[in-house]
Amino acid sequence: MREIFDAELRQVGDDLVQMSRMVESAVTRAGKALLEADLQLAQEVIAADHEIDALQRELDERCVHLLAQQAPVATDLRIVVSALRMSATLERMGDLARHVAEVARGRYPAHAIRATAEPTFAAMAAAAAAVASEVATLLRTRDLGLAGEIEKNDDVLDDLHQQTFATLLAPEWDGTTQEAVDITLVGRYLERFGDHATSIARRIVFLVTGDVEDASPHA
Amino acid sequence: MREIFDAELRQVGDDLVQMSRMVESAVTRAGKALLEADLQLAQEVIAADHEIDALQRELDERCVHLLAQQAPVATDLRIVVSALRMSATLERMGDLARHVAEVARGRYPAHAIRATAEPTFAAMAAAAAAVASEVATLLRTRDLGLAGEIEKNDDVLDDLHQQTFATLLAPEWDGTTQEAVDITLVGRYLERFGDHATSIARRIVFLVTGDVEDASPHA
Repeated sequence: MREIFDAELRQVGDDLVQMSRMVESAVTRAGKALLEADLQLAQEVIAADHEIDALQRELDERCVHLLAQQAPVATDLRIVVSALRMSATLERMGDLARHVAEVARGRYPAHAIRATAEPTFAAMAAAAAAVASEVATLLRTRDLGLAGEIEKNDDVLDDLHQQTFATLLAPEWDGTTQEAVDITLVGRYLERFGDHATSIARRIVFLVTGDVEDASPHA
Repeated sequence: MREIFDAELRQVGDDLVQMSRMVESAVTRAGKALLEADLQLAQEVIAADHEIDALQRELDERCVHLLAQQAPVATDLRIVVSALRMSATLERMGDLARHVAEVARGRYPAHAIRATAEPTFAAMAAAAAAVASEVATLLRTRDLGLAGEIEKNDDVLDDLHQQTFATLLAPEWDGTTQEAVDITLVGRYLERFGDHATSIARRIVFLVTGDVEDASPHA
């Protein structure tokens, strides 16, 4: 039984790594589509999101099957329950990347992000791609040093998110209302993306060390 | 064992009902705080959110304990896994109500919602309070007729959310950028609130009938 359990648990871990790579690809391309007004790329991100959703359903079924067949306890049980939660979080991160791509597609051929706000969003897109990459590596290697990096990049995203409001509310802001709406929404999507990455980092730290820290993706 | 399991499962169900009532109270009061610029009420909603979070943690621990001690299978297992997911969803709905209250608090003594957009937000607040009430009753009674009502009210929220954009982007819009930002954010919070309610409704339908429909709170 133990061998089967270990093999199935490895598969769950592999699926999580696979999901996280798809999310990394999605948010990296969504950021590029947004900043370069690249319609083709935006459409690719939007079309690929259902693959993340499908993998989540598969992974969740695997977890429920594992619970039913193996009745794990203690740490094993917490790993499976955490996997269920992390798959939901990764699925949500995929949705957020898709939302960014949808804004890019909706404004094409115009740029959704006004030139004055572009540096901030370039930095946000880079930080979101970085946390996604770090989450993928953390899930693969369990190198807890990455958890700290993820928290730092999440702080960067929060600061940049505040900057987007500063840009919008500055007296020299002269964008359209549509531009204000897009900046507000995309800023929120990317800020939430960072929260979710942090929640995954905290779950992994908890699994490896037993240290509890609130892992709900607050914002 | 079965008696203990049934008693614990009843407790999980009771906790979900309790959480849903707290969420209903939060979103109802947050809507009122927003529309009436009621600082005291906004602060109450914000302060009460940690009680919802605490109940979620308790409920999740109960579910993990149940899985460990009772190793449920088949329908019993699906009920426990669904409870874990629904508690996360309710916690998130509580966060969204808190976010609405935070906007109200941030603008006080001014009204966050400009008079032109007020009827739309009054309708959104009412629809959000309605889905929350329906979710609480659905969790208590398992009356599946309510699932249809929740989906209908979620559609109402989606339509009203689109109306908020129509208001913002109409040529006669003459609000400030801060007002545009607030309308964009609060509209998004309430629209997401409806998505989460729908996801709970679908989970309950699945548990009772076995009918699968995608229960992830997309938007």
